[in-house]
Amino acid sequence: MHTGPQRDQACLIVHGPDRPGIVAAVAALVTRHEGNIVSLDQYSTDPTGGDFFQRVVFGRRDLAVAMPDIEADLAQTLGPMGMEWSLTDRSVPKRMAIMVSTSDHCLLELLWRHRRGELPVTIPMVISNHTNTAEDVRSFGVPFFHVPSAGPDKSAAEAEIVKLLAGNVDFVVLARYMQILSPDFLDGIGVPLINIHHSFLPAFIGAAPYRKAKERGVKLIGATAHYVTKDLDEGPIIEQDVARATHAHSAADLQARGAYVERAVLSRAVEWHATDRVIRHGNQTIVF
Amino acid sequence: MHTGPQRDQACLIVHGPDRPGIVAAVAALVTRHEGNIVSLDQYSTDPTGGDFFQRVVFGRRDLAVAMPDIEADLAQTLGPMGMEWSLTDRSVPKRMAIMVSTSDHCLLELLWRHRRGELPVTIPMVISNHTNTAEDVRSFGVPFFHVPSAGPDKSAAEAEIVKLLAGNVDFVVLARYMQILSPDFLDGIGVPLINIHHSFLPAFIGAAPYRKAKERGVKLIGATAHYVTKDLDEGPIIEQDVARATHAHSAADLQARGAYVERAVLSRAVEWHATDRVIRHGNQTIVF
Amino acid sequence: MHTGPQRDQACLIVHGPDRPGIVAAVAALVTRHEGNIVSLDQYSTDPTGGDFFQRVVFGRRDLAVAMPDIEADLAQTLGPMGMEWSLTDRSVPKRMAIMVSTSDHCLLELLWRHRRGELPVTIPMVISNHTNTAEDVRSFGVPFFHVPSAGPDKSAAEAEIVKLLAGNVDFVVLARYMQILSPDFLDGIGVPLINIHHSFLPAFIGAAPYRKAKERGVKLIGATAHYVTKDLDEGPIIEQDVARATHAHSAADLQARGAYVERAVLSRAVEWHATDRVIRHGNQTIVF
Amino acid sequence: MHTGPQRDQACLIVHGPDRPGIVAAVAALVTRHEGNIVSLDQYSTDPTGGDFFQRVVFGRRDLAVAMPDIEADLAQTLGPMGMEWSLTDRSVPKRMAIMVSTSDHCLLELLWRHRRGELPVTIPMVISNHTNTAEDVRSFGVPFFHVPSAGPDKSAAEAEIVKLLAGNVDFVVLARYMQILSPDFLDGIGVPLINIHHSFLPAFIGAAPYRKAKERGVKLIGATAHYVTKDLDEGPIIEQDVARATHAHSAADLQARGAYVERAVLSRAVEWHATDRVIRHGNQTIVF
Repeated sequence: MHTGPQRDQACLIVHGPDRPGIVAAVAALVTRHEGNIVSLDQYSTDPTGGDFFQRVVFGRRDLAVAMPDIEADLAQTLGPMGMEWSLTDRSVPKRMAIMVSTSDHCLLELLWRHRRGELPVTIPMVISNHTNTAEDVRSFGVPFFHVPSAGPDKSAAEAEIVKLLAGNVDFVVLARYMQILSPDFLDGIGVPLINIHHSFLPAFIGAAPYRKAKERGVKLIGATAHYVTKDLDEGPIIEQDVARATHAHSAADLQARGAYVERAVLSRAVEWHATDRVIRHGNQTIVF
Repeated sequence: MHTGPQRDQACLIVHGPDRPGIVAAVAALVTRHEGNIVSLDQYSTDPTGGDFFQRVVFGRRDLAVAMPDIEADLAQTLGPMGMEWSLTDRSVPKRMAIMVSTSDHCLLELLWRHRRGELPVTIPMVISNHTNTAEDVRSFGVPFFHVPSAGPDKSAAEAEIVKLLAGNVDFVVLARYMQILSPDFLDGIGVPLINIHHSFLPAFIGAAPYRKAKERGVKLIGATAHYVTKDLDEGPIIEQDVARATHAHSAADLQARGAYVERAVLSRAVEWHATDRVIRHGNQTIVF
Repeated sequence: MHTGPQRDQACLIVHGPDRPGIVAAVAALVTRHEGNIVSLDQYSTDPTGGDFFQRVVFGRRDLAVAMPDIEADLAQTLGPMGMEWSLTDRSVPKRMAIMVSTSDHCLLELLWRHRRGELPVTIPMVISNHTNTAEDVRSFGVPFFHVPSAGPDKSAAEAEIVKLLAGNVDFVVLARYMQILSPDFLDGIGVPLINIHHSFLPAFIGAAPYRKAKERGVKLIGATAHYVTKDLDEGPIIEQDVARATHAHSAADLQARGAYVERAVLSRAVEWHATDRVIRHGNQTIVF
Repeated sequence: MHTGPQRDQACLIVHGPDRPGIVAAVAALVTRHEGNIVSLDQYSTDPTGGDFFQRVVFGRRDLAVAMPDIEADLAQTLGPMGMEWSLTDRSVPKRMAIMVSTSDHCLLELLWRHRRGELPVTIPMVISNHTNTAEDVRSFGVPFFHVPSAGPDKSAAEAEIVKLLAGNVDFVVLARYMQILSPDFLDGIGVPLINIHHSFLPAFIGAAPYRKAKERGVKLIGATAHYVTKDLDEGPIIEQDVARATHAHSAADLQARGAYVERAVLSRAVEWHATDRVIRHGNQTIVF
């Protein structure tokens, strides 16, 4: 369960059509490269004819030296089986950018967990269309970039953001970034984006979910972390959670309480993504 | 928190436009009728110009004898203030009918809680469009009536149900009754209906919510108990709850797990309704 | 996640000192016996020098025929590695006895879940030192045996229970059986016992936990399912859960609410034990 | 549910022996001083002969001017009934000191919630026996005082702390202050102290609760906020909560996860205390 960077540990993700012998083949491969399996999770939508997903963490002395050999063996072993895979060195943290508007609760939670050593990432930048969080961000030693996005045409702002991100980050977290991103932008950055939606999707999609929740008289409010796709509020869900609501809560109360659910849900989703626990599968996720 | 019938206790519900002095007027009324307040809850949407809601439970020796005087005093005291009220003798349990189709989990939970003395109601009848639960129902000493509802025209079945219910029950619980009820039926029975919807409304309204939840890849499933209105799945929500779901759950797994959430949520809603803890307010509820 | 009996599926539990190659050896073994891994969980207290635990479910046509060969291969493969293992045919449900005193909530929950097909066990008998649940038990088609246990000397009663259980059951559930069992009894029956303790162990060990919880003014009450050992209330914990409590709850209220936590916690523990998801490890459990 | 300071609102706490007419007397008093009841909670351990507790929030134009008259009326009205009461002007926030050692998670949560306007207090000082949090504290504009407490004799340190606190604060929060405070200190400061205990009391009292929890193999970990009394870990509980634990969590993992429960539980307790929602009653609390 350690979430910090791990020396001499690799994480291998394998997925593809299920068939007998995959687990044995992967385990044998790890063994013949002198790896010692630390944890192994697997899931199959159907053992006969379904889709197979596996996550293996293994330790191996002098991992960096052995990586090319292991990569080559993976290609030879899994390629003929029609499987896809990715192998990552766990001593290399992913680079995470955060995009934010004015609300700071998700942003500060991520920065603070990172400072505590509980998020195995580096944070090369925070980008905001506002400036109110700049001082806080920089007090954590993280660069802050202000990219205003006023006016109907967001293309210049988006282009500037793409330029900042390109080649510098492995994934982006929208920590209450209140601008709709264009399909071109999503194509342009080429890395996954995780969003926190301030409602319990698929309920209350779109804007002002807490006001809608108040009007509907719900007894629980929630939040949803999901990967961003071109279909707004429709991407694969990573994590969700809820908190109790009563008649005595105003829409503003719900929003204040919801903020605590949002930051917890987003933090878990980010931690799981950063440690390669989340595999996308169509519009769903496998979370190991 | 006792939920069984209470001798010599009354429950008074008051609501109407908020104004200074209501609480004092009600408390003084209880005192001058020698009542002793056991519990008091109040809520105002806005102390100046909002709507006011109050529930007072008070003890009074020989309550039955005093009821007419208290009623008359309520009319004199609250009438001029424009308030509405209802006074109930807590030694008289509400009469609850249960309507059910084939799924027995909500039905059995209600029958069993009732037998344990945890639901202060009487159950004069269970009505079903199927017969599979008849033996179980009767083993609890509760009458079972079979009213088939095949074919597109439900009016004969509905008429028969209205005839069974009329004058015999104070509220009806749809414990997974899988027939859509007509507006005429709802007008005809003249008592509140509580429904359990097997999803976390307003997500997944309509049929097959667990299949939809699986397709959407949600990480929590839920259930909603609500009063029935002519707008399907849109009535005032009384209670909601959720359970964790993962990628490894099939739609059938979600349904099986959901059953436990459904029975818990419905039971709480029924208990609260039976003890006059729920006040309808437009399309919302106040739950004391 | 299917919990019913599964045709042509085996469950293999392996544990022992961790060392490189165990997962590969087990996976290869399954493959060479034409098994297809359905699910695999593993845990190691420490990949270098710790204890290793694995649960593998695999499908195999004509499993019953192949079992002896697989068993022999396991002995040859895992024996030299110093591992222990157990292989079970998932089409053969475990035989579960239930022991109960007067409280019926845990008992009925188990019987009812079993009837719904959600507990993959057979229930050859219910044993009680009281008779109040006899009729209910028999209405589920389950034999009921009354073994009174009045007086200070329980040895005759215990001997009678051992005689009923011996050879007939694979595990025993104490579903609120309010008698302390002697070390001799525990030795005598030779199968695991699961108990539900009506508190959140290790808080409020011993009798009257709800009264103690009320006196201590706790804000959550809980229940604990655990394996029974000779140290009362000290056995390995399988599952725990809690419910909210407030100042307004009397000790009796806490007990009534606690009953719902107890039945849920015990049911989960029983399901997990019945599906070989729980491995004892000293005074702790691994729950896959 | 607004938690910020409220202009022209008073909070009245009344408690004493229950007797008929108390609610009426209090409500009439509020009305004759032109107050408008915003919220009212009451609880009685037993309506005949028990203890009575009430919290009334009421609005009143020019409250500050009216306070002396209301106070005098309270003395005249409630004194003869043997009741105790306290009346506070909600526009005057309580002054809260925070004491902390090296762990910053509870401290930062409180400072951050305060900055968001979600804790209706002022924070005149943070006192620590370490210096690592000084910079963070001051970045919130809050004074930081370092009072070392090395060596077995804490009396000098305690005396210094008493001097800092005396007359300057209305309550003290021990936000993971890892020193045992002497009875003399508790007598000396004369204001309530709220402590967060990093376990689910009464389980795992004393030091190293997460290690003990790991050894006991619990499936939930928790935290408890309570008032400090001379009996270590035995004071009245204000709030508790839990998080799931599994066999895969090390003691360090439990501690890291527990930190999130601790900060949430402590924050709720502080908010409730700051808004006069908590009434001590022997070794228990009434939380409205």
